Amino acid sequence: MKFLFIFVALFAFHDGFSQDTNDQAYIKSIFDNSLTQSSVYSNLKTLTSEVGSRLSGSSEAAKAVQLTQKMLLEVGLDSVWLQPCMVPHWERGETEQMYILGSTKIPLTCLALGNSVGTGKKGLKADVIEVSSLDEVEKLGREKIEGKIVFFNRPMDPTIIKTIHAYGKAVDQRVFGPKIASKYGAVAAINRSLTTKLDDIAHTGVTIYQDEKPIPALAISTLAAEKLHQKLQKGNVRLFIRNTSKNLPEEPSFNVIGEIKGNEFPDEIILIGGHLDSWDVGTGAHDDGAGVMQSIGVLELFKKMNYHPKRTIRCVLFMNEENGGRGAKAYQKISNQNGEFHLAAIESDLGGFTPRSFSCDGSAVAMKKYFDVIKKWESLFLPYGIQIEKGGSGADIGPLKSQDGMLIGFKPDSQRYFDYHHSRSDEFKAVNQRELEMGLGAITSLIYMIDQYGL
Amino acid sequence: MKFLFIFVALFAFHDGFSQDTNDQAYIKSIFDNSLTQSSVYSNLKTLTSEVGSRLSGSSEAAKAVQLTQKMLLEVGLDSVWLQPCMVPHWERGETEQMYILGSTKIPLTCLALGNSVGTGKKGLKADVIEVSSLDEVEKLGREKIEGKIVFFNRPMDPTIIKTIHAYGKAVDQRVFGPKIASKYGAVAAINRSLTTKLDDIAHTGVTIYQDEKPIPALAISTLAAEKLHQKLQKGNVRLFIRNTSKNLPEEPSFNVIGEIKGNEFPDEIILIGGHLDSWDVGTGAHDDGAGVMQSIGVLELFKKMNYHPKRTIRCVLFMNEENGGRGAKAYQKISNQNGEFHLAAIESDLGGFTPRSFSCDGSAVAMKKYFDVIKKWESLFLPYGIQIEKGGSGADIGPLKSQDGMLIGFKPDSQRYFDYHHSRSDEFKAVNQRELEMGLGAITSLIYMIDQYGL
Repeated sequence: MKFLFIFVALFAFHDGFSQDTNDQAYIKSIFDNSLTQSSVYSNLKTLTSEVGSRLSGSSEAAKAVQLTQKMLLEVGLDSVWLQPCMVPHWERGETEQMYILGSTKIPLTCLALGNSVGTGKKGLKADVIEVSSLDEVEKLGREKIEGKIVFFNRPMDPTIIKTIHAYGKAVDQRVFGPKIASKYGAVAAINRSLTTKLDDIAHTGVTIYQDEKPIPALAISTLAAEKLHQKLQKGNVRLFIRNTSKNLPEEPSFNVIGEIKGNEFPDEIILIGGHLDSWDVGTGAHDDGAGVMQSIGVLELFKKMNYHPKRTIRCVLFMNEENGGRGAKAYQKISNQNGEFHLAAIESDLGGFTPRSFSCDGSAVAMKKYFDVIKKWESLFLPYGIQIEKGGSGADIGPLKSQDGMLIGFKPDSQRYFDYHHSRSDEFKAVNQRELEMGLGAITSLIYMIDQYGL
Repeated sequence: MKFLFIFVALFAFHDGFSQDTNDQAYIKSIFDNSLTQSSVYSNLKTLTSEVGSRLSGSSEAAKAVQLTQKMLLEVGLDSVWLQPCMVPHWERGETEQMYILGSTKIPLTCLALGNSVGTGKKGLKADVIEVSSLDEVEKLGREKIEGKIVFFNRPMDPTIIKTIHAYGKAVDQRVFGPKIASKYGAVAAINRSLTTKLDDIAHTGVTIYQDEKPIPALAISTLAAEKLHQKLQKGNVRLFIRNTSKNLPEEPSFNVIGEIKGNEFPDEIILIGGHLDSWDVGTGAHDDGAGVMQSIGVLELFKKMNYHPKRTIRCVLFMNEENGGRGAKAYQKISNQNGEFHLAAIESDLGGFTPRSFSCDGSAVAMKKYFDVIKKWESLFLPYGIQIEKGGSGADIGPLKSQDGMLIGFKPDSQRYFDYHHSRSDEFKAVNQRELEMGLGAITSLIYMIDQYGL
């Protein structure tokens, strides 16, 4: 009964309508099918409940490879394969402990950052120094930093409307803060969680030491950061930190790939991808279970609609976006070795929210050749509230820039993303079915247009 | 620390920038303040936790009047007053029961519709006949309908992108279905819940009997509707229904109103409103706690920003939108008696989601005079993802159309709204802080523009 009244305009494409009307009708049929026939939401439920979190190198990541390969095989594609890559294997260890020392211990909610080393079984105690930038650490120098715990507390700016840009302006503290702190002799680094929400949930993410000696690095919740800041306003603060995180030997892993071969221009590849790994807290539902299932969902939808593409449409589930990007590097290397050309690569890695835009990126050559073509399709997307713009695309497709194709980021509404990002809140229940399906409709429609007309 | 990096462009307005740059800067400062300084979210928490649901005529509705009057007084306005109106007083009674009779009873999750009468203490048993439209009942006639329970099961069309339009195409079954069923002798009516989500939550809402004899009328969850539909496919189904709902004598109640008097054109009123009553399940967080708190929030923001409006800016919290619209009627009557002119009236009653557009409505005179003026401001709103369009405005401001001012509906993203609407899921936790605050920023900015330039 539920679907009794759905008009699926599958056949409008072949009648006497004008091209634009045909495209409108076909895009409507894509959205209709996304909203009623797709497995995208139930597949996400399966991934998050049967596998859960899936950090690179873990047994769960290996299970996720198996599961998604199976899903792609069930879609009935021309080819499904696994592409090997070596990945880092970091483990959080025992539940972290952090508290302010004093007459009564004040606990601070925390999570080790990915790549962090441990404090040793006994933990460590040291005085805290608060900073709001990497520069400040450089200015304070070894005299003020040595032996201390450096507390990076510059918040994400809540007045930036697109939250991903606010993240971009604050994330240097997490990625490079511990490294800079180490350079000047700090014994540990802690970071205010990267979210605009004031709550007691810690958000992890990768940190990079490069040539500096690794030191323990942990994120604390925004409420804990406020608490610590207030204590520091009143005087010296000494902290206890304990974590047993460690880096283990690299593990073999895989990108999971499936494709439908184009029947006219098989050498022009249109890639849709997301990343299969996730952080080890929550179940990576938005980041990036949503993008993974939308990527599979595009191929499923085309098969269900009996659509035979002119160009090769390939779904790539990249391994290790979160702490190494090894899957993306392996994919690019092999693609170049094989002399492939990606006419377009689309990445969905900003959550399963209502679609707002496609953001186009690429080499100067690519932007000049292709952007205007895509931009003129905008009128087909505006009825769905979706714009075409210039801007960043995505971390996993970035390495393909040298092929001079178009790189496109799928941009859903960003207001809620950092409530969940890299935290235990990133669960299936945080994903809304219609929003996820609308995203699938948007991506599939854009791929349909690129496939039909080239660029 | 959190707000250390916020640039509030309060003073940009008075410097040598061009007008457009000034407006951009002031609108940015409105959004900055919405996202950092507003009580809109904490006020919503107070309303939903201290009062909870607040159906017209209930003691909770009376408490909501007190609470919001107090909130407006605390903002420090020129005037705050209560405007009396009589409202219906309907009570749900004991928890409803509904099950399919047979060798084992199969329970169906249900909620009486507002205005429904009860079945009597013993409940009622009757055979079910499924229909998908009011017309179908008319066609079946007394012969097929008499003595039966009529089951209206036409779903909301999930392929309609703006869910409010899908609701508009299905809601006739709930509002008028029981009346038509009664006309042909049905003993009760049940309705598939108005949501595209397939779950076990029932969604209530008003039904209207007009001159027909009232019969018990209940909504069932979409899962229950599917279950009942499947049973009916296999043969005759007999149902047991029990509810003790009743209409009580009307009660006195109030619209809650506050305003800042304009210092140049005090007789040109710009109204911002939502409705204070809610259904008696959930806590009316999106419907319409969000709109109520945004309406108060506009005045709070202007006061905090020390903005002195040229025109009178009035917040109206309408009573009884859900089952009578008595507050709206009382407001219009008194406004007309006082010879008032509402240059613009804005309603927020579609939830506290990310803002997408303002939808302009009005008499032919008003549309001709004012729409183009507002439309040309669109470029100021596009950076916030907000469009200006023609379309419906809102139920509470609708009666003001005769004053030939502009009526404007605030349209947030609609994908999640009917997951919560009129159900126990409409709780505070379903509202996202940033999304609610973004809506406040949008509404306040539009009012600022109307206040500055007129229409």
